[in-house]
Amino acid sequence: MGREKVIAVVGLGLIGGSMAAALRGFEAYTVTGVVRRQETADYAISHGVCDRVTMDPMEILPEADLVYLCMDPRGIVDYMARYRDVFKPGSLVTDVGGIKTAIMEGAKVLPETVDFIGCHPMAGTEFSGIEHSFPTMFQRAHFILTPGERSTPEHLDLMKRISAYIGCSDVVVTTPERHDAIIAYTSQVMHIIALSVCDDEDLFRCRGFEGGSFRDCTRVAALDVGLWTQLFSMNAPALTKVIRRLEENLRAYRETIESGDLEALSKKLTWSADRKRQMNLPGPGQVML
Amino acid sequence: MGREKVIAVVGLGLIGGSMAAALRGFEAYTVTGVVRRQETADYAISHGVCDRVTMDPMEILPEADLVYLCMDPRGIVDYMARYRDVFKPGSLVTDVGGIKTAIMEGAKVLPETVDFIGCHPMAGTEFSGIEHSFPTMFQRAHFILTPGERSTPEHLDLMKRISAYIGCSDVVVTTPERHDAIIAYTSQVMHIIALSVCDDEDLFRCRGFEGGSFRDCTRVAALDVGLWTQLFSMNAPALTKVIRRLEENLRAYRETIESGDLEALSKKLTWSADRKRQMNLPGPGQVML
Repeated sequence: MGREKVIAVVGLGLIGGSMAAALRGFEAYTVTGVVRRQETADYAISHGVCDRVTMDPMEILPEADLVYLCMDPRGIVDYMARYRDVFKPGSLVTDVGGIKTAIMEGAKVLPETVDFIGCHPMAGTEFSGIEHSFPTMFQRAHFILTPGERSTPEHLDLMKRISAYIGCSDVVVTTPERHDAIIAYTSQVMHIIALSVCDDEDLFRCRGFEGGSFRDCTRVAALDVGLWTQLFSMNAPALTKVIRRLEENLRAYRETIESGDLEALSKKLTWSADRKRQMNLPGPGQVML
Repeated sequence: MGREKVIAVVGLGLIGGSMAAALRGFEAYTVTGVVRRQETADYAISHGVCDRVTMDPMEILPEADLVYLCMDPRGIVDYMARYRDVFKPGSLVTDVGGIKTAIMEGAKVLPETVDFIGCHPMAGTEFSGIEHSFPTMFQRAHFILTPGERSTPEHLDLMKRISAYIGCSDVVVTTPERHDAIIAYTSQVMHIIALSVCDDEDLFRCRGFEGGSFRDCTRVAALDVGLWTQLFSMNAPALTKVIRRLEENLRAYRETIESGDLEALSKKLTWSADRKRQMNLPGPGQVML
């Protein structure tokens, strides 16, 4: 099959590197990585992360049919402002950012001829950099899309084909506001929990006493500080609301245990455990205690 | 090799069934399961969980060199009181309970001729019952022991050989008080977190937005209510102290995010993430975000 169309993946870090590698071979597209450092370019080529790599955005953006922005949120917003007149007319720009309202706002800088659909593939690891990327990262993950007001059905359909090609479990189309409100709960506060657990004074004394639940819960605390400073602060109102609710739910458990009322504790446990069973989430990471 | 010695595993549930199956073939021991229900006996025999099975404790306890009590904490304490005069003189009684102070206290009922070493293999799943048991459950888990005042070196050595045989990563010998204080942090509060996260009003609205960190963190919320009512309430002072510390650490993160001080947030994230990296816990459940 002839490769006549061009995907540019800007930023080959953990997510960008994985996305580029996952996209290779998609329909009639070639995948070109756009990087800033020679070492990243060398790694990408020697590890087959993409078909081509360039350090000059001007060389590839004018001919790219799809541009995947894989930097941190501010990097994505700044990039769109800087290259707004370079993107190819009729092209689609998308991203992988973990918050969507600020990015969709930033995308308004793009000319009318350039489409933008926000994207958040719900996958990743606690590591950073192209050397930790892998092409199967998105398998079984949700692929969340926040189309713009003038996004075309053709571009939405293209994103859905990409989701299927990289192995995502499903496509969720939503608004940026709803995305950010729910992601504060399902992702951001999980990180706040992991960090807060590691802040406990007993952390270094507990070696030898931890099981699977402790390892699972604290895993994501080893996060990329620069990235998560942005993600947390750019979604502060939604996130702090969820943290406050969690503080209240923890306090309710503490008070029930303090009360010594075993029947009340048993009732409360039954209620929470039933909610969890109703959710019945499948997927990786569900094995050991 | 002749099988001349006898291990009785009392209670073939998730942990007891796994322990019996893991112990099969250990040195010169046969493994006899002691159960209350005919269906459990049938399952144990048809699935090779143990060498023999009985529903009559009087038939096996008087000849058992090692008795592994695998019920909930109150069940363990009650069993020792009820069968105190039936255990074989010179034998070792042990258990798998998730709290140790109350169980060690209960073991004082045993006659001087019967040794007791508390045991907590740090493994399990969120399921219950023999049908969810599996012999590799303890692989790479910590094997925590709380010997009694008159526990013999021979019996401690026997427990260490068992730990190695069932595949545990290491043996941690400690006091029941220290065990309970640290387990409140490494295990019990992980369950309180999972439950509290599931109590959030957004739980059922978040389908399609969850990733690995959410699945990992909430997994253990689907717990055995009767068992955990006991575990939490019998360790209430230590547990509520840890919950309170977590509430404070969460509040500190919330307030830093609310303040809008990005430098302070970045510093705080760096501190927590560094602590996590210093812990560098290996093991299962460390793959997806």
